[in-house]
Amino acid sequence: MKTLYFITGNEGKVIELQEKLKPLNYTILQKDLGYPELQADTLEEVATYGLNHVKASFSKPFILEDAGLFITALKGFPGVYSKFVYFTLGLGGILQLMNQYKNRQAIFRSVYGYYDGKDSIHLFNGECSGVISQEKRGSHGFGYDPIFVPNGDVRTFAELTISEKNLVSHRGRALDQLIAFLQKP
Amino acid sequence: MKTLYFITGNEGKVIELQEKLKPLNYTILQKDLGYPELQADTLEEVATYGLNHVKASFSKPFILEDAGLFITALKGFPGVYSKFVYFTLGLGGILQLMNQYKNRQAIFRSVYGYYDGKDSIHLFNGECSGVISQEKRGSHGFGYDPIFVPNGDVRTFAELTISEKNLVSHRGRALDQLIAFLQKP
Repeated sequence: MKTLYFITGNEGKVIELQEKLKPLNYTILQKDLGYPELQADTLEEVATYGLNHVKASFSKPFILEDAGLFITALKGFPGVYSKFVYFTLGLGGILQLMNQYKNRQAIFRSVYGYYDGKDSIHLFNGECSGVISQEKRGSHGFGYDPIFVPNGDVRTFAELTISEKNLVSHRGRALDQLIAFLQKP
Repeated sequence: MKTLYFITGNEGKVIELQEKLKPLNYTILQKDLGYPELQADTLEEVATYGLNHVKASFSKPFILEDAGLFITALKGFPGVYSKFVYFTLGLGGILQLMNQYKNRQAIFRSVYGYYDGKDSIHLFNGECSGVISQEKRGSHGFGYDPIFVPNGDVRTFAELTISEKNLVSHRGRALDQLIAFLQKP
């Protein structure tokens, strides 16, 4: 049984990961260390900075994750600042901004950062393309889920069950890559 | 003649400061080192993190500055992410968001961080209260100046001359504090 630390304050992410990593004989332990999140253009930069910061004082294998919603017509807004925008403008603010655009395309992105406890760091990213809905729908999930409709579906993320969402979601896809990496001999 | 380094990529800020510090016998040298800008709730946190980062590798007296527009009805948005929001949503996006609010109050904030080259750091902040205008007006200044009307005036920052703006602006006021500090025996 190997132990992998998850540096996060979000218990929901830990439970999701524990579920996924069960067959791999990994124990996931939440570690709410906190780390500086950078103002940057990409999630990869935010994750890399976080990894380097944490590994300077924590030398066991760990992961962290950062995600964001990138809306094409808004030039990638809210992007790496999705959490801040969610708590200020909210979903209503995003819908208001989208009123003036026909193009409602958006991409959810997730990046997992992994440190092996010795000398190397690795990034694994996942994407899910879709559109911003005309109104909020559904009650599952969190964040922007009620206004994001993944391609190939007519329901928002918040109208999907957790297992349906995990099959197509950005975080689910990034996690699949992390898992494939951990399974390599 | 003392030398003070200004860690910034913004030449306009350097020229403004040189002008202001002339009587004090200071030479201002621009140093475009770059430093990580933190995702944080306050400009003070961003400036402090930047100061500590730069002084770890640069041991001469220096300053840096961070500023933002905090709109009351939008819970402080765009705040410390003002630059990012300017380049994505733009002024049109802010006006669009404000359509749904009667309360158009906003505060421009600036924080100067100063490192004395030995052992201590200092923060100096300045504020300017005002309202978001109904439309863009004026061609001076930069950023959000065309949609910000300072209290006590009917013109936007972009309709003021530079010297008029400096008298009441957030950055001008923060700078006054920095100057008062540097003049202390």
